[in-house]
Amino acid sequence: MKNHREAIVIRTKTKEAILDITAEVARIVRASGIREGLALVISRHTSSGVFLNDSDASVTADLAEVLHRLVPPGAGYRHDDSDPKRNADGHLKAALTNHGVTLAVTNGDLDLGAYQTIYYAEFDGGRPKGVLVKIIGE
Amino acid sequence: MKNHREAIVIRTKTKEAILDITAEVARIVRASGIREGLALVISRHTSSGVFLNDSDASVTADLAEVLHRLVPPGAGYRHDDSDPKRNADGHLKAALTNHGVTLAVTNGDLDLGAYQTIYYAEFDGGRPKGVLVKIIGE
Amino acid sequence: MKNHREAIVIRTKTKEAILDITAEVARIVRASGIREGLALVISRHTSSGVFLNDSDASVTADLAEVLHRLVPPGAGYRHDDSDPKRNADGHLKAALTNHGVTLAVTNGDLDLGAYQTIYYAEFDGGRPKGVLVKIIGE
Repeated sequence: MKNHREAIVIRTKTKEAILDITAEVARIVRASGIREGLALVISRHTSSGVFLNDSDASVTADLAEVLHRLVPPGAGYRHDDSDPKRNADGHLKAALTNHGVTLAVTNGDLDLGAYQTIYYAEFDGGRPKGVLVKIIGE
Repeated sequence: MKNHREAIVIRTKTKEAILDITAEVARIVRASGIREGLALVISRHTSSGVFLNDSDASVTADLAEVLHRLVPPGAGYRHDDSDPKRNADGHLKAALTNHGVTLAVTNGDLDLGAYQTIYYAEFDGGRPKGVLVKIIGE
Repeated sequence: MKNHREAIVIRTKTKEAILDITAEVARIVRASGIREGLALVISRHTSSGVFLNDSDASVTADLAEVLHRLVPPGAGYRHDDSDPKRNADGHLKAALTNHGVTLAVTNGDLDLGAYQTIYYAEFDGGRPKGVLVKIIGE
């Protein structure tokens, strides 16, 4: 069995941003030398998420709006009283999407459907963040 | 280490459908010969999901209604302007549920709780779709 | 390749509870002897979830409120007519969060970000429940 661990650094300037990280994850998978296995792609943070969706950027814009409607910022959350960043909505949005995704590695490459795109969703940005890629296989 | 990759073809005639694929996934796990490991079951598409829930079909009917309420179709989404299928709600529903699930393989079989059922949720149906099963272990 | 399987027993007295199980999962990972791999932590039930979020208990209190707002109990669900426990909201809340999470194992320990905490969310409590931990690696 082989394994590979690598971090991706994410830099955002805004509070919220949804970034396509597919090419970077694919590069890590190819460079790992692992031909068949599973790849975990997971945020290191609790107010950001990693998930799949369509390659069309209109979908992520729609998703940001839906999450804003379901979890409006500053709507009387307890966590906004205990954390000076008042980022409760960020933690809650990450809970409704996902912090990480497990993907297949086949023939040395990411094994994704035609339109499947890996997104990092930042809900409390403005400082460097990390995404962990852990691959096991052979 | 052993690995196995197999696709399940899904055929739906309606825009939305939630299908129990547990028996088919279990058949693939048993036939793989892998005794101990992990099995990833993941949609190949961005407007359908794979997740666990109760074996009672009333739960999936309730879930379809809740998703319809949280993400009503045609509610001014940007993606409906860029994609002639106007399937934005499908992408957003898949984001709120999940595109894939990772399961345990123990003693050559799927290791599920008594009522845990694997569902494929189609939110943009009417053409053949695929679910990938990737198993690694020994 | 090595693998390890172990169950955590959860005992709650209330219908809903969100419990931090990080220490117990970390103990299982360390005792497994697996140094590099993946760990699946997954509920055995369909009305409870396992997911990551912030270590601050105010976040889980906020999450319970948001889920209550999105999926109010007893709101005319079909499943409440077919199951005498009338726990439809529990199944639906678990669908919006997640039944399980896949985590990295690195250098013999859980590989989590600084604030990442593993939660078991009970949405239909009052009897013993189980969480499965399945680790594969070397």
